[in-house]
Amino acid sequence: MRITALAGGVGGARFLRGLLHHLSARSDGPHSLTVIGNTGDDITLFGLRVCPDLDTLLYTLGGGVHEGQGWGRADETFVVQSELAAYGAQPQWFGLGDRDFGTHIARSQWLGQGMTLSAVIARLAERWGLPGRGVTLLPMTDAPVETHVVIDEGDSERAIHFQQWWVQHQAALPAKRFVVAGLNQAAAAPGVLDAIRTADLVLLPPSNPVVSIGIILSVPGVRDAMRGTTAPVVGVSPLVGGAPVRGHADACLSAIGVPVTPDGVAGLYADFLDGWLVDKADEAAMADSDLSVRAIPLLMTDIEAAAEMASEAVELGLSLRR
Amino acid sequence: MRITALAGGVGGARFLRGLLHHLSARSDGPHSLTVIGNTGDDITLFGLRVCPDLDTLLYTLGGGVHEGQGWGRADETFVVQSELAAYGAQPQWFGLGDRDFGTHIARSQWLGQGMTLSAVIARLAERWGLPGRGVTLLPMTDAPVETHVVIDEGDSERAIHFQQWWVQHQAALPAKRFVVAGLNQAAAAPGVLDAIRTADLVLLPPSNPVVSIGIILSVPGVRDAMRGTTAPVVGVSPLVGGAPVRGHADACLSAIGVPVTPDGVAGLYADFLDGWLVDKADEAAMADSDLSVRAIPLLMTDIEAAAEMASEAVELGLSLRR
Repeated sequence: MRITALAGGVGGARFLRGLLHHLSARSDGPHSLTVIGNTGDDITLFGLRVCPDLDTLLYTLGGGVHEGQGWGRADETFVVQSELAAYGAQPQWFGLGDRDFGTHIARSQWLGQGMTLSAVIARLAERWGLPGRGVTLLPMTDAPVETHVVIDEGDSERAIHFQQWWVQHQAALPAKRFVVAGLNQAAAAPGVLDAIRTADLVLLPPSNPVVSIGIILSVPGVRDAMRGTTAPVVGVSPLVGGAPVRGHADACLSAIGVPVTPDGVAGLYADFLDGWLVDKADEAAMADSDLSVRAIPLLMTDIEAAAEMASEAVELGLSLRR
Repeated sequence: MRITALAGGVGGARFLRGLLHHLSARSDGPHSLTVIGNTGDDITLFGLRVCPDLDTLLYTLGGGVHEGQGWGRADETFVVQSELAAYGAQPQWFGLGDRDFGTHIARSQWLGQGMTLSAVIARLAERWGLPGRGVTLLPMTDAPVETHVVIDEGDSERAIHFQQWWVQHQAALPAKRFVVAGLNQAAAAPGVLDAIRTADLVLLPPSNPVVSIGIILSVPGVRDAMRGTTAPVVGVSPLVGGAPVRGHADACLSAIGVPVTPDGVAGLYADFLDGWLVDKADEAAMADSDLSVRAIPLLMTDIEAAAEMASEAVELGLSLRR
């Protein structure tokens, strides 16, 4: 089975780790997984290119993630960052550990040598053992795009980088809308559109529907590919009881005028979504939906719980095969 | 007293630290010191600009150097480097610690923002408290120059970066000559020529006469400024008993056909040198010299020993004042 997933950071990575766990236990293998990662979060810090979502996917699927926080590296140290602070280098609001710096330095070096982001990610993924497990990680685009948040300041507005809004301001500044700088010039990275079109199953993990999956969908050609694929498309709601499990999906949904409900999120995918996995707490709210809805516990407390969620998503998808 | 010194890495830095120690104990202050550092050693590693000699000067004068090895930072860790190795990033023959990486990342960020190397070094020097101690550290040039070593391969020759020859091959490959890429387009950094012309005393610490001081002297205008300065020029021999105290000055001198003797080294400075400090072991070898020679123990076993050497150099210089 060839599965393709669109993914953001922590929620997507944990779900996909569970999916791999589930797939390895299935008897109908081999299976392959292509992950299309959001790069709108990408930012240049200290002259180095940082790809938060792709790195969270690498670290989580590769076994190097800091379990407690869900992103960054386990056993991390912060010597470089303290040196940069001593020199007065800016910014200081984004925490980068020494192991993490290794990734950013390697990536920036290779990008500087003319490699595409796709090629760089493939090289980083080798170290994390992804190819050997049938996993291909693709950036949504090789173009350097960046999600900016337009902040409402009463009579005026200003745009700041998504990471500044998310990390420095904890999504507490009033967002009016999200704009993706560079996106109109961007093309989907090699393999992205084909991976959607030719998959046996397309999954939307419980990633942020606005600033993760929504950004991937806005890459030219991706939404059309989602509409055109013959594979069933199954999504996992990022909400439990009307609130995001983690992150600030509620602030993002409100900013674009979408209700913070599983129905509201599903509406963002209305033109291609076939199946929709929601939490037990939201089952009643989806009673009138035209989608194939399945309600299960959606908390990824550990790998086994995530694998169970993934198993339900796969089974729902297989039941919807045309 | 305004002192200007041309300096390479470890030997120069240790001598100048001793000089500062000596100057702070003198009763005829205040004194100021301008250090013109070699940048021919500079190299881009992992996309980051590394300035080995300037950094050794910063760390040594600022109290952050690894005393045992004479370069790099004390209390160093190597997390980033091990990550880069895990990713297969190249090269792996140049050891960079995490604290050291902080310097290179800050420098590269600021250079990338359009700052000159002079401005970057001034900013790094603030953190190390140099301005407060009357010390100005200048790169010899703001142009990105790099010393390359032409290697004799029998029927053919090839050029490699100085650091590759020095660090990876420990100066063991047969060098035919040294060429400085970019030097013909380079100008002395702001303040360099004036610092030489208007000094009360110009010092040549026991740095490598070929690949450190020799490279600085080859920056357009520097040698003329040395010839034209009204200040006495006093040098300290890098040899003790016909061998370098550390480093590979012997291989460098042999490569350019100069005898590995204090007389041979002094000959490289013949057009501007006034006073020459040699080791007791080399006193007899300098008996016929026209220079004002003083022979003392030249081993910088600790700061006090270096301060004593610096004191002798200063006194010799003052005795030669016109």
